[in-house]
Amino acid sequence: MTINVLFSALPGRWEQYQEPLSAAFIHAGLRVSLRTDHAPETVDYVVYAPNGGLSDFTPFTQLKAVHCLWAGVETIVGNPTLRVPLARMVDAEGLTQGMVEWVTGHVLRHHIGMDAHILNPDHVWQPENPPLAPERPITILGLGALGTACGQALTGLGFNVTGWSRSPRNVQGIRCLHGSDELQQALTKAEIIVTLLPDTPETTNIVNAKRLALLAKGAVVINPGRGPLIDDAALIAALNTGHISHATLDVFRTEPLPKDHPYWVHPRVTVTPHIAAETRPSSAAKIVAENLRRAEAQEQLLHLVDRRAGY
Amino acid sequence: MTINVLFSALPGRWEQYQEPLSAAFIHAGLRVSLRTDHAPETVDYVVYAPNGGLSDFTPFTQLKAVHCLWAGVETIVGNPTLRVPLARMVDAEGLTQGMVEWVTGHVLRHHIGMDAHILNPDHVWQPENPPLAPERPITILGLGALGTACGQALTGLGFNVTGWSRSPRNVQGIRCLHGSDELQQALTKAEIIVTLLPDTPETTNIVNAKRLALLAKGAVVINPGRGPLIDDAALIAALNTGHISHATLDVFRTEPLPKDHPYWVHPRVTVTPHIAAETRPSSAAKIVAENLRRAEAQEQLLHLVDRRAGY
Repeated sequence: MTINVLFSALPGRWEQYQEPLSAAFIHAGLRVSLRTDHAPETVDYVVYAPNGGLSDFTPFTQLKAVHCLWAGVETIVGNPTLRVPLARMVDAEGLTQGMVEWVTGHVLRHHIGMDAHILNPDHVWQPENPPLAPERPITILGLGALGTACGQALTGLGFNVTGWSRSPRNVQGIRCLHGSDELQQALTKAEIIVTLLPDTPETTNIVNAKRLALLAKGAVVINPGRGPLIDDAALIAALNTGHISHATLDVFRTEPLPKDHPYWVHPRVTVTPHIAAETRPSSAAKIVAENLRRAEAQEQLLHLVDRRAGY
Repeated sequence: MTINVLFSALPGRWEQYQEPLSAAFIHAGLRVSLRTDHAPETVDYVVYAPNGGLSDFTPFTQLKAVHCLWAGVETIVGNPTLRVPLARMVDAEGLTQGMVEWVTGHVLRHHIGMDAHILNPDHVWQPENPPLAPERPITILGLGALGTACGQALTGLGFNVTGWSRSPRNVQGIRCLHGSDELQQALTKAEIIVTLLPDTPETTNIVNAKRLALLAKGAVVINPGRGPLIDDAALIAALNTGHISHATLDVFRTEPLPKDHPYWVHPRVTVTPHIAAETRPSSAAKIVAENLRRAEAQEQLLHLVDRRAGY
């Protein structure tokens, strides 16, 4: 029997995904009718991006599951019309690899002080020896698939990495702390922090004035996670005093970042346009197909969202 | 018996090295008189930096060996007054670690296109997906201790790495090519090249117009090795046409790079002030002490320079 899969995302995505998804469905042994315009009551599965315009799942009376193309599901997880299992994208091959490259690159950029040479209008030749990686304490907030992969890449390069997560984790080579009791310890004297937590009510503004003050003087904040993790006013205040020497931010409460946002003009802020972890169609399609195969076989879905925890 | 060790380097280095060297000699069980002013005919060993002013070793009639504090020995290797074994610095803990950090950082910088965000005066929000590391061919010229360590760090991050060396090497995860016959193959379609060869008559201008033309259009040249490896005029010409999109250079024929050198003002060149691999006193001192212990025990020295090969 043919499975009806509705693709609901921004129009440009259809061009990128149609072929890889079709190929992956065939490879997984599934007979799928993949369209952007199935009648709702005939749809078995939705392949979904939160910015694609679909928000009322009520008419989807036969729906079996929704597969999000994004890792962040905060805008759909609380949707009361969604009453079927929701899987999110955990794409080790594409999304995780991209995140590791972006995080490792920007950590090294700040660690070795690249900007002083990239922007050197006075042509100053002034050799300086920054500390080596083992002397550089880095804290990653969030030890999910992305935070863990970034932590492992950074320890692989010799960095001194602490990871903090809500519940206990154990990752080789990383000092793992957890729970609200140990958050202060995780942040104290950190010279670079990387925020890779999910966006939940508990994590909103988790990087606030009090916690920024715990970091080492001149620390760097790198946020490739979610915009609301950062208390923007507190970060700007700490950048203004120099307690935080730089912030490199990939995600924001409003995206694209509004033209008049102070981050654009702050000399100690680098804005990147939500590029750190981009789902890649070829690898993401394989995950979606594997999950549809599992759903059809009544097996447990991969990367199932815990609707109560919010991710 | 006390061993007389002369320290000959720039004056500032004495302050950095006196304590770590003294501690390392004690730790190695050596009784050493370490000074900057031993009478030449009483000196057993010289701890040496090529820019310290000493070039005539004739008066050093009792000299047993010279230990260079630098990895690059091109300015001393041909010195006819030096008739004793010469060791060079291969400091895995400091020099190699620093080189890996600098090379990996600048490779990632170019790979993910950081400069477009660091320098973004028009506040353009334009997400782009560069290829992931496995799709990025990188070629490292030189597979000595530094080139090998950098290659391993880059393959660890998922990059597609080719290494080229004069004589055959075998490094896991790296496509290893060697000899002049395979240099063309190593460079063809490379998108990023990293030059980590020693400075010898054979390697002078090894990166010339013909070889730059083999690289992929828009390739990046990263030189943390030695200035003379690059034919500067050919590189500037290739930057001007855009065939080479950027060069990040840490070493130059004349250092500091003269104020009027075209590299300073070229929009596609980043100059860093010979910082990629800096010998760190604490770890370098341990190597020097171990080699003096070996020399005193008539054992083979570590990192002995092959005077004919030139490194």
